Amino acid sequence: MKAIVIHQALDLRIEERDAPAPGPGEVEIRLAAGGVCGSDLHYYRHGGFGPVRLKEPMVLGHEVSGRVARLGDGVSGLAIGQLVAVSPSRPCKACRYCLEGLPNECLNMRFYGSAMPFPHIQGAFREMLVADAAQCVPADGLSAGEAAMAEPLSVVLHAARRGGELLGRRVLVTGCGPIGALAILVARRAGAAEIVATDIAGFPLGLARKVGADEAIDMAGDPDGLARFRPDKGHFDVLFECSGAPQALAAGLAALKPRGIVVQLGLNGAGDMSLPMQMVTAKEIELRGSFRFHEEFPVAVSMMQAGLIDVKPLITHTLPLARALEAFEIAGDRTRAMKAQIAFDAAA
Amino acid sequence: MKAIVIHQALDLRIEERDAPAPGPGEVEIRLAAGGVCGSDLHYYRHGGFGPVRLKEPMVLGHEVSGRVARLGDGVSGLAIGQLVAVSPSRPCKACRYCLEGLPNECLNMRFYGSAMPFPHIQGAFREMLVADAAQCVPADGLSAGEAAMAEPLSVVLHAARRGGELLGRRVLVTGCGPIGALAILVARRAGAAEIVATDIAGFPLGLARKVGADEAIDMAGDPDGLARFRPDKGHFDVLFECSGAPQALAAGLAALKPRGIVVQLGLNGAGDMSLPMQMVTAKEIELRGSFRFHEEFPVAVSMMQAGLIDVKPLITHTLPLARALEAFEIAGDRTRAMKAQIAFDAAA
Amino acid sequence: MKAIVIHQALDLRIEERDAPAPGPGEVEIRLAAGGVCGSDLHYYRHGGFGPVRLKEPMVLGHEVSGRVARLGDGVSGLAIGQLVAVSPSRPCKACRYCLEGLPNECLNMRFYGSAMPFPHIQGAFREMLVADAAQCVPADGLSAGEAAMAEPLSVVLHAARRGGELLGRRVLVTGCGPIGALAILVARRAGAAEIVATDIAGFPLGLARKVGADEAIDMAGDPDGLARFRPDKGHFDVLFECSGAPQALAAGLAALKPRGIVVQLGLNGAGDMSLPMQMVTAKEIELRGSFRFHEEFPVAVSMMQAGLIDVKPLITHTLPLARALEAFEIAGDRTRAMKAQIAFDAAA
Amino acid sequence: MKAIVIHQALDLRIEERDAPAPGPGEVEIRLAAGGVCGSDLHYYRHGGFGPVRLKEPMVLGHEVSGRVARLGDGVSGLAIGQLVAVSPSRPCKACRYCLEGLPNECLNMRFYGSAMPFPHIQGAFREMLVADAAQCVPADGLSAGEAAMAEPLSVVLHAARRGGELLGRRVLVTGCGPIGALAILVARRAGAAEIVATDIAGFPLGLARKVGADEAIDMAGDPDGLARFRPDKGHFDVLFECSGAPQALAAGLAALKPRGIVVQLGLNGAGDMSLPMQMVTAKEIELRGSFRFHEEFPVAVSMMQAGLIDVKPLITHTLPLARALEAFEIAGDRTRAMKAQIAFDAAA
Repeated sequence: MKAIVIHQALDLRIEERDAPAPGPGEVEIRLAAGGVCGSDLHYYRHGGFGPVRLKEPMVLGHEVSGRVARLGDGVSGLAIGQLVAVSPSRPCKACRYCLEGLPNECLNMRFYGSAMPFPHIQGAFREMLVADAAQCVPADGLSAGEAAMAEPLSVVLHAARRGGELLGRRVLVTGCGPIGALAILVARRAGAAEIVATDIAGFPLGLARKVGADEAIDMAGDPDGLARFRPDKGHFDVLFECSGAPQALAAGLAALKPRGIVVQLGLNGAGDMSLPMQMVTAKEIELRGSFRFHEEFPVAVSMMQAGLIDVKPLITHTLPLARALEAFEIAGDRTRAMKAQIAFDAAA
Repeated sequence: MKAIVIHQALDLRIEERDAPAPGPGEVEIRLAAGGVCGSDLHYYRHGGFGPVRLKEPMVLGHEVSGRVARLGDGVSGLAIGQLVAVSPSRPCKACRYCLEGLPNECLNMRFYGSAMPFPHIQGAFREMLVADAAQCVPADGLSAGEAAMAEPLSVVLHAARRGGELLGRRVLVTGCGPIGALAILVARRAGAAEIVATDIAGFPLGLARKVGADEAIDMAGDPDGLARFRPDKGHFDVLFECSGAPQALAAGLAALKPRGIVVQLGLNGAGDMSLPMQMVTAKEIELRGSFRFHEEFPVAVSMMQAGLIDVKPLITHTLPLARALEAFEIAGDRTRAMKAQIAFDAAA
Repeated sequence: MKAIVIHQALDLRIEERDAPAPGPGEVEIRLAAGGVCGSDLHYYRHGGFGPVRLKEPMVLGHEVSGRVARLGDGVSGLAIGQLVAVSPSRPCKACRYCLEGLPNECLNMRFYGSAMPFPHIQGAFREMLVADAAQCVPADGLSAGEAAMAEPLSVVLHAARRGGELLGRRVLVTGCGPIGALAILVARRAGAAEIVATDIAGFPLGLARKVGADEAIDMAGDPDGLARFRPDKGHFDVLFECSGAPQALAAGLAALKPRGIVVQLGLNGAGDMSLPMQMVTAKEIELRGSFRFHEEFPVAVSMMQAGLIDVKPLITHTLPLARALEAFEIAGDRTRAMKAQIAFDAAA
Repeated sequence: MKAIVIHQALDLRIEERDAPAPGPGEVEIRLAAGGVCGSDLHYYRHGGFGPVRLKEPMVLGHEVSGRVARLGDGVSGLAIGQLVAVSPSRPCKACRYCLEGLPNECLNMRFYGSAMPFPHIQGAFREMLVADAAQCVPADGLSAGEAAMAEPLSVVLHAARRGGELLGRRVLVTGCGPIGALAILVARRAGAAEIVATDIAGFPLGLARKVGADEAIDMAGDPDGLARFRPDKGHFDVLFECSGAPQALAAGLAALKPRGIVVQLGLNGAGDMSLPMQMVTAKEIELRGSFRFHEEFPVAVSMMQAGLIDVKPLITHTLPLARALEAFEIAGDRTRAMKAQIAFDAAA
């Protein structure tokens, strides 16, 4: 079977790998769709981000769905051929954080496609994937592409909960890539009364409006575009910072009310970020990190199934496995792409 | 002008009153719609509830909208003829609770149509109403009936915030009268992943389904209808108790997960309620009172204007002022009515 | 070896049992001190409480300390002869609640001396006890009696956290038995600015004053003793209800400020409790159950070791094992006893 | 009467000013003690901090106590000669933040000795001060110096509440100036189980130990002194950052557990601060600003009166008004001073 392997920055290959067999409690999955995430792009372009660096070849990919091909011993509740969303999160369920209800902070996490530990945790961009049954959430009624969006949607559901109650609140989203666009969708679903989004590119701003932003401001054209939200110490209750740009964070903070909450989702390559700390202090702002997700994964699937969240407008490109490299290039092109996915089961 | 006045239990009269003139900062409003609330019904049927008792005639009504007829000195931002939702809440803005951000707990509150202090606070069911400009929220784009729903919607928005984050949560609503039905609407808007409702009458259960309940259970027909949610210590994250019935509360608690939250909205006539305290303790449940609202009123109007919440299906009856008594009778008939409103400006 | 076994109400026996040997990861402990808890008393007097009922003979006891006698294979960090506080809590570490950080809600909990599952979970009042090493917290520097107080202190530390921030707050404690007295100690340690306690017996009220209550009110002598805290909707921020008496809860609620928090710790025999729900609603009170504890156990030991909490004044009686029955009688005598302990290793 | 006036950086003068008379509701106070705060020092040394800049001469000072000299009409509850702590906080009680319970964010705040608005808000370092009666909290039983500590103690009580429950928690304090030292005192009072403090100077570290730090680490001598708290993603639950130094913040973050809370109290001159954002995100850390105080001021006084917090060890220097300039120099000397106060009523 084929897998998509990153060797070093700009060296991405489609390689042959042995297909493993499912053991007890495991499931063999024929991959259907795989979305290219920002972190995949960081590995592809720069070989890592911040302190996280590639040290050996690694299969990429952690936003995936597929169809059940074979069931290991003792697996029930799944049927051959059934579409499943596969969670890339594999906490140990035994360390102190797992037992504190924070499996996303697991000390022994094996999250697909992560270069953080060494040897790296190999990812899910492969034609055949063997996963624990517990990772597989039935996705009946969804398309393969939607099912593969369960992962980034889970990230944003988790972040939204970190942001506290959103019902009737005024929400600002800085950065309208896939995570920012999902933040708009989720904030709307969570009852935000007003959603304003910012970016510096036209295409994502257009999509931001389409998926529910009441207003989408081009900060490239109008660097002071949030100025009217600053009087009386600010306007917004919650800021989802999805750009990783210090100037976006600073402009967002200035438009946030006292006691406003920032959920930091965006990461720049450096790891560090400059913060207008005097403003944070004087307005008693809360800045909260949000990292991956845990129980949100099956919730994400069920909310898509129930029609409560519609991610389809975000999937702008789907390419066959043979054109995976092109998918990576497109995924990074903010003039035309939101989420680019690879169809692992399509005829090339 | 005419007003709807309660003299004692079952003695409701349409009487002539002098129309007042707006002072500085005040607005004269020609009333359009007025909804009959459960507390209005308590005054009508029983002359009060719990320790709250009628001691003198009182104009009823606190769910109202109308059109601006005259502006007092210094009022800006409102136009003659404009539809406004009128908040019945008039906190003093000076007592300790007003200054703690809890105006709904104001020590000097003058809430329309309340028999709690003596002399009573006269209500808003009158053809011409003079209110502070700050009570009037422009409701352009809404019908008069929708605008009059801003008040009960505010009650439920406030209660929903008392319930904490609802995004992706499992919500149980016990009692599907107007408050329960609004709780379903609001929980859905706030991102609840699953909503189950219970009642003992068919008509409200049907409406509960219509406005968004995934399931509506008739506890009269099946007193143990929540049994399947009890295994593993319970299923739901949040319970909105809107019935005031101890058995509904007890059945709801049994279906609630450990650390589940109960928002108590329903009130019975007695004031006291029996509680399975050992279950509350053993499951570490949180029971939270919710009382009226404060900053939620303009939010309620704007969310209806933006199409985020649609209360129209709940307005089942609209009668002209001349038939106000009939409106009260209908409002109490659970076999056919959800919210009954009085049209103050309609030709009889 | 001898054990203290309850057969049915009022039938408590000191019986011979075989002493088990420690397996891998286990520790054999020569019991030193065991405190008689309110639930032990309920079994002794009534054969249970609420729905929890004795169905077979059960060794009582869950507040214990002892000295390490033997180490099973693979146990490190403990020394022969070392004093340890032994946690009676044995969650499964695998069920959904254990993995949500709520091990006190474990679906498979084996808590010492509990009649809830059948067969019952046998308790720790026995001369030799075999426990998992993880249950044993070194208690160097403490007396055996203090170490045995780690369990009820953990219960109250957990409850205090359920009550939210106490720093600078006004705290009311209703019921001054061992749990109420510990609540006073802990509230003082947590920075409460004012602590008022109530009871209906003189002895516990005297001890309440001694351990830190600013005021201790005898509600038997003055049933309206909290009246001066009721104006302006109430005075206290937090109520620790430790009596299980509905009238204490009602009086406490009336003295609580809007948005005040009740932590319910007391249980009466019935399981149900009447609640002035209209007051709960109108003042937006939060009533929170608190059940056992989890990570608080080692914290309790270390805070006693550091001198941050001094439980010694609460241990009013210590009797040798041969006089265990007398210890139970004394434990229930509110005219003279607070905590009665049994010295398992004393010469009779 | 004399007042201490800053004209520009390093230009501090003792000048004659007219003594005002108390109007209705006001109190004339003969100043007793005034503490030199870090912000006073910033004005003295640099003419301001961050965007806050001196534009005209300003009386400094906001940590003061004094004795009642004269009562304006309508003032009750205060006696001539009584010692009072005077709150420097004068919110408008009418703006949106005052009505949201956030008077420290008042849009029209007139906080003593602040150059933020222009004209500046004149301060309290003057022999005779006229204040609103509501600013004056009786401080019977305290020394004048202790009463003047009510202000910085209020700042830290407020910050401690921003840090959430501290009972049984592990607390790190970076920076052991007066605010850091008070944070140690308050964290201990609030029930912290373990307190570790860091600084780069020996004198404040010694005092940190004296007022309750379990350990005080000299980061100048051992820049990696927190290394042993980093394994397993960190050790501390809460960090009170009182230094304003980015390296202290970064080292503290690395020693903080996932979901740890940072309360940012320290400010450097620049206003901005670099933050290891990837760590904030990956550990889901919450960074919360804390600004001044509100209802904590009378609480601070009462807790000192009750002996719950003892600030006396922090008052290292008291100089008469004539030597005010020397007091400023001493206040900035970290080799020997913690809090330096000026005795306004002492014979020179």
